[in-house]
Amino acid sequence: MEPVNLKTLAERLNLSISTVSKALNDSYEITAETKKKVLALAQELNYQPNPFASSLRRHKSKTIAVILPEIANNFFALAINGIEAVAVEHGYHVLIYLTHEDYNREVAITQLLLNGRVDGVLMSLASTTENQNHLLELRKKDLPIVFFDRVSEDDAVSKVTTDDFESGYNATQHLVDQGCRRIAHLMFPGHLSIGRKRRDGYLQALLDNNLPNDPALILSCNNNSTQNYNAILDLLKSNNRPDGIFASIEKLALNTYAACAELNLSIPDDVKLISFSNLETAQLLHPSLTTITQPAYDIGKEAATLLFKALKRKPVGPETAVLKSVLIKRNSTAIRSTGNV
Amino acid sequence: MEPVNLKTLAERLNLSISTVSKALNDSYEITAETKKKVLALAQELNYQPNPFASSLRRHKSKTIAVILPEIANNFFALAINGIEAVAVEHGYHVLIYLTHEDYNREVAITQLLLNGRVDGVLMSLASTTENQNHLLELRKKDLPIVFFDRVSEDDAVSKVTTDDFESGYNATQHLVDQGCRRIAHLMFPGHLSIGRKRRDGYLQALLDNNLPNDPALILSCNNNSTQNYNAILDLLKSNNRPDGIFASIEKLALNTYAACAELNLSIPDDVKLISFSNLETAQLLHPSLTTITQPAYDIGKEAATLLFKALKRKPVGPETAVLKSVLIKRNSTAIRSTGNV
Repeated sequence: MEPVNLKTLAERLNLSISTVSKALNDSYEITAETKKKVLALAQELNYQPNPFASSLRRHKSKTIAVILPEIANNFFALAINGIEAVAVEHGYHVLIYLTHEDYNREVAITQLLLNGRVDGVLMSLASTTENQNHLLELRKKDLPIVFFDRVSEDDAVSKVTTDDFESGYNATQHLVDQGCRRIAHLMFPGHLSIGRKRRDGYLQALLDNNLPNDPALILSCNNNSTQNYNAILDLLKSNNRPDGIFASIEKLALNTYAACAELNLSIPDDVKLISFSNLETAQLLHPSLTTITQPAYDIGKEAATLLFKALKRKPVGPETAVLKSVLIKRNSTAIRSTGNV
Repeated sequence: MEPVNLKTLAERLNLSISTVSKALNDSYEITAETKKKVLALAQELNYQPNPFASSLRRHKSKTIAVILPEIANNFFALAINGIEAVAVEHGYHVLIYLTHEDYNREVAITQLLLNGRVDGVLMSLASTTENQNHLLELRKKDLPIVFFDRVSEDDAVSKVTTDDFESGYNATQHLVDQGCRRIAHLMFPGHLSIGRKRRDGYLQALLDNNLPNDPALILSCNNNSTQNYNAILDLLKSNNRPDGIFASIEKLALNTYAACAELNLSIPDDVKLISFSNLETAQLLHPSLTTITQPAYDIGKEAATLLFKALKRKPVGPETAVLKSVLIKRNSTAIRSTGNV
């Protein structure tokens, strides 16, 4: 079967190719009657515009890129669902790029996008990203970009986050309320603002409760799960063991479960645990995990919504949206462990 | 900064645009010396080919589509990691489309891909897909396609799965070995072969162990989590309650945990549970979950590898790869529950 293109439609209708094209693009130069005829035949023959030809004409790829640290992660999977819902609504395609937390990969990916393959970019930074020059390149190309979760510190870009400082504060305050006096923080890997904000919330809560700030209680974690696990083991083996732990990400909470099992420490009797997490099974863990749960789907949706606003060139400056997280109390921070869980 | 295009390079080198283009495409018409000069300048100026212009010329989008039922699912997230690794190796971009288990969305997505936006498709079917005519359309367009996990039954297409029948058999045999005599199966939603194969493995194991096949013990699940939960509740409330449950997917296992908690039934003392699952937290659940774990990353990788073979037009017919799953014994199928977990 021959492909159905503008020429096919033009020949069948005895019109010029240019008239058919204008009719399909709803041009004011074409009469309503002609438009109707063209659309009817296009539908009948299942005409599909060649995406690359029309991209060249309109400089629109109808595609956005989502650059993520990883995909096997509940937060990002849910955020993609939110992004995809908005993209589908706008008839857009979604390219996914994974940095695997590697700064060099992130740079390579952003360079790949400089050549017009996409109309806009949604991005969450790799934890190893310190230098943000590669992001300036994207902005120089006038490629709309919205950051989410792990955002750039550049004030000139749009970003969507949760209330990281307040959530860090509330997590720590909850541990204090449950009786903890020596609270450790497993800090977000890397040098991104998200990590500093969560830690600053923790420090402020210690201060407000007249609890000492002991630098030995802040573990600077990295992307090596074994190293993090060993550091948590050492922390829990120390003579002056913490009685509460606030983990900045889910993976570090899972490392803590494993370390407590290894040392035969009971959560929550020996040490209480709270973590940022979108884990579906938080309720089913042993013990169930008290979480700071981000509105991941809505964060993705909001970031995509800001991006499409920018694509429509509405006269907006950089926008910032903060979506609140929720603290869900479960048994890992109970005053005493219950029999069953 | 002006964009660096073929014209820029041609002017700087005092060559024709056509010569520069041929040199960049390594044409035999161009001398080695000229090629070297062109490449050196292209590198120096960081020349990026316009992807849409070169797609038109070569009919290659350098893009593959991955069509998935859902993304907030450990199996699919890991499979995407495997797919992405192979795509990056080949310098390809990855478009992600989600059907959300909806047949109509799946049809709309495949029609979207008929117009040449991608060079090939990797696909796992929606559980509501019965009619596969939309897949024939893709094949008519000569668009290479490889199915994985939830595959088409068409013998003419390439597919990658795990050993669904054997794994269903082994899961059931394990429950028998642990003392179960009345074993229920929570069947994969929909009408796909993956569901039938897992159930057939279950039935064969019952037969080989001289256990009766009671149709009341096979729950045909759907995509409505509340309905599935209620059906499992009813099953567990019946006078003739099963003493073992084999769940075809992780979500149904999590429904079973919730139903047992509601009814105050102990896993594994009252009912033992095994499930297909790639859950990261299987070990931390209460009790830890015995799983049939698929090599999800390798399944994605293998599917992508077959697709790139097809893209290179190596003279291969449809290929089928079967990657074995692993049965990991944990406390949900222990003979007796242990104290701690």
